[in-house]
Amino acid sequence: MWEKNNTKKVVIIGGGLVGSICACFMAKRGYAVEIYEKRDDIRKTPEIRGRSINLALSHRGRNALKALGLEKEILDSAIPMKGRLLHSKKGKLKSILYDPSFNQCIYSVGRNYLNKKLIDAASSYPNVNIYFNRHLTRANFNEGTVTITDSKTCEESQVNADLFIGADGAYSKLRLAMQQTAQFQYTQLYIEHGYIEMSIPPENGNKMIPNHLHIWPRGKFMMIALPNSDSSWTVTIFMPFDIFENLTTGNEISRFFRETFPDSVDLIGESSILDIFMKNRPSELISIKCSPYHIGSKFLLIGDAAHAMVPFYGQGMNAGFEDCCLLDGILEKNNDDIAMSVEEYSGVRAVDAHAICELAMYNYIEMRDLVNTVGFRWRKCVDNVLFKWFPNKWIPLYNSVSFSSMEYSRCIQNRKWQNKIIYRSIISLGIIIGTLIVLFLKNVLN
Amino acid sequence: MWEKNNTKKVVIIGGGLVGSICACFMAKRGYAVEIYEKRDDIRKTPEIRGRSINLALSHRGRNALKALGLEKEILDSAIPMKGRLLHSKKGKLKSILYDPSFNQCIYSVGRNYLNKKLIDAASSYPNVNIYFNRHLTRANFNEGTVTITDSKTCEESQVNADLFIGADGAYSKLRLAMQQTAQFQYTQLYIEHGYIEMSIPPENGNKMIPNHLHIWPRGKFMMIALPNSDSSWTVTIFMPFDIFENLTTGNEISRFFRETFPDSVDLIGESSILDIFMKNRPSELISIKCSPYHIGSKFLLIGDAAHAMVPFYGQGMNAGFEDCCLLDGILEKNNDDIAMSVEEYSGVRAVDAHAICELAMYNYIEMRDLVNTVGFRWRKCVDNVLFKWFPNKWIPLYNSVSFSSMEYSRCIQNRKWQNKIIYRSIISLGIIIGTLIVLFLKNVLN
Repeated sequence: MWEKNNTKKVVIIGGGLVGSICACFMAKRGYAVEIYEKRDDIRKTPEIRGRSINLALSHRGRNALKALGLEKEILDSAIPMKGRLLHSKKGKLKSILYDPSFNQCIYSVGRNYLNKKLIDAASSYPNVNIYFNRHLTRANFNEGTVTITDSKTCEESQVNADLFIGADGAYSKLRLAMQQTAQFQYTQLYIEHGYIEMSIPPENGNKMIPNHLHIWPRGKFMMIALPNSDSSWTVTIFMPFDIFENLTTGNEISRFFRETFPDSVDLIGESSILDIFMKNRPSELISIKCSPYHIGSKFLLIGDAAHAMVPFYGQGMNAGFEDCCLLDGILEKNNDDIAMSVEEYSGVRAVDAHAICELAMYNYIEMRDLVNTVGFRWRKCVDNVLFKWFPNKWIPLYNSVSFSSMEYSRCIQNRKWQNKIIYRSIISLGIIIGTLIVLFLKNVLN
Repeated sequence: MWEKNNTKKVVIIGGGLVGSICACFMAKRGYAVEIYEKRDDIRKTPEIRGRSINLALSHRGRNALKALGLEKEILDSAIPMKGRLLHSKKGKLKSILYDPSFNQCIYSVGRNYLNKKLIDAASSYPNVNIYFNRHLTRANFNEGTVTITDSKTCEESQVNADLFIGADGAYSKLRLAMQQTAQFQYTQLYIEHGYIEMSIPPENGNKMIPNHLHIWPRGKFMMIALPNSDSSWTVTIFMPFDIFENLTTGNEISRFFRETFPDSVDLIGESSILDIFMKNRPSELISIKCSPYHIGSKFLLIGDAAHAMVPFYGQGMNAGFEDCCLLDGILEKNNDDIAMSVEEYSGVRAVDAHAICELAMYNYIEMRDLVNTVGFRWRKCVDNVLFKWFPNKWIPLYNSVSFSSMEYSRCIQNRKWQNKIIYRSIISLGIIIGTLIVLFLKNVLN
């Protein structure tokens, strides 16, 4: 038990990815940190499938790991993905690199592996205490305390702190309490699509072209596959719920897969597809926006609790990790004045978090549909050429989001500015060509 | 205790305006009705100020009262308002009638008076039981029960029913529970404006031009006054919170009122204004949209619990009363099949409730700003003339919302159609006049 006089105490609700990395940042600042995690210690329990088991680690997430000296270890067991690999219905394959100019990659990393490493990292600080099987039951904003309940004994305890950080995910209980206070803006949106996770076993994994995020874009829906370190691939199908609901019999499911994703059937295994489809309902996808992220001078939301997003930009974890870097920087700048810092954090972060929530929603359309269009590929080409020529001036949207720390809202502004320039260039080009044709015809006719 | 075999039992959470009128409708259908109201019986307690004490009753609300045989009694003690009365800064007055063609009015009615009458009406049915000081603590969607807690003894009881109706207002506990189930879309938005209520005492009330809703439109904010049956007027000022916060001293408040609402100072009384402003914080205004309104086959939200709106269209209560009529009609059509009816209700009502929430937001801009513009008055004139000529074809927006039962979403479509026609007429007129001028000039020059 590490505590010294005048040390600030931070209570973190949730020991998931964002909660545990946040604990490391706060411990590094010298705060006395307590994590309350509602589940058992995942380092001691068998893996539970359910939530997406792969994550795409990119620049912002890496930055946070780097600040804690954890980047190298995590990257060593992650699998680089240098581009998208599109599967057509006829089995034709096409690789579209994320960054042909500078070869930057995103990294497929296992959620459980990463969470265990981060819990280990947090535990290694003498000033961090982690309590498992403890969940938040009440937040007492006026008194500045929370009530934590032992999930096994149901015993309640009042917990004090100088700062309470809600890192308790998309279904955050701290946020639920904050939502019931005045002036808290809140939106939860379930999209009309759900997902089901399957797997390509290691023995078939080597039949997949490596180092890519595989996509079967089918317009209204899509399937994707991310590589795992054991040579297996995690396959996720995203579709409108009504299409899922229409696939009730084994025959229907088989026919659907053979017609829509023919080259995937032998890789996943037909019996495995049928088994998973018959036994599982598709899971929901929720997008959450709220503001402010703080209540009073010591309650704060970070990660999915503040801004759960649909998974299509691979930025959920990255944004959550960036939250922690940002908070750490603001506390540093304000000499650990917590009241001032939570307010400042809330003010600057909400606009960017809302922006990435929007981008994630947009990227679903890009992944499942636009990647197949001529316009998308032409634009990608133009972007790549300009990026190569002007690497500091012309950063394509995907690159600014995934391979830079540019504020998410500025990524969108940047894209709008680029669109305007391209639009004007096309118009100018049209006028020039038109003029040339007129001049040419005039000469010929004379 | 009224109950017979095979009678359907309905539990209504909340005995406010919408809860009590809903009880009447359900009792009339022959259901065994229980109301659980968290406050004391308002018929036995002194009036508590706080929530807006006047309401504007219009067509949809009257329709519901009429169906229960209550309209005449309520209208007899309500005060008709035939138009808006605008107060300029210089004290100039201008009446703008709501409906100069057919003289339709809205009616100012006291919230407490109406609530008491409706509780009386509900109590008069032998098959209605009302329990006061009882609040909902849990909804058990899977079991189809709710847990009700006695606010005084804290005793909990499990309550069964065939249908649970949440009429527990903008901060509904049933909705909070529903929000935590999958696929529930939810948005709460606090607008940046708050309000403070004052009063013109009866002895000054006769100095006000009667039978109008008085408005002091001031662009970014406004003040309004509605008449009460005791000759007093309830005055409400709506303003951005930051303007309220800047009015801290008596001097500042006095100067603000003398400069902004000069003719109101003597009516309300300066000391009374100062007293209220120094002692009260402005209240918040919340707008809530959610869907669906039902969970499973027997939980349903109505009124503010489903669609709390800002008060600027005077439709909150009217929409809530219309909810009850609509539900009653759907139950009738479906031979009291509750599961089928709650789903159908939810499907048809959400789109209209969302529409009136939007309209209410828009109407704030109209009331505080647009009413002062030439464009608004010109449009109002055009609308009135066309409405008089084509009463079934050209119903102005305000009239379709306040004086008809047209679906709220259709009121908006209707307005868009009208806008298009007016726009095209102006363009056509421009072309005709232009052509005539050209022909004229041609003749003159020849």
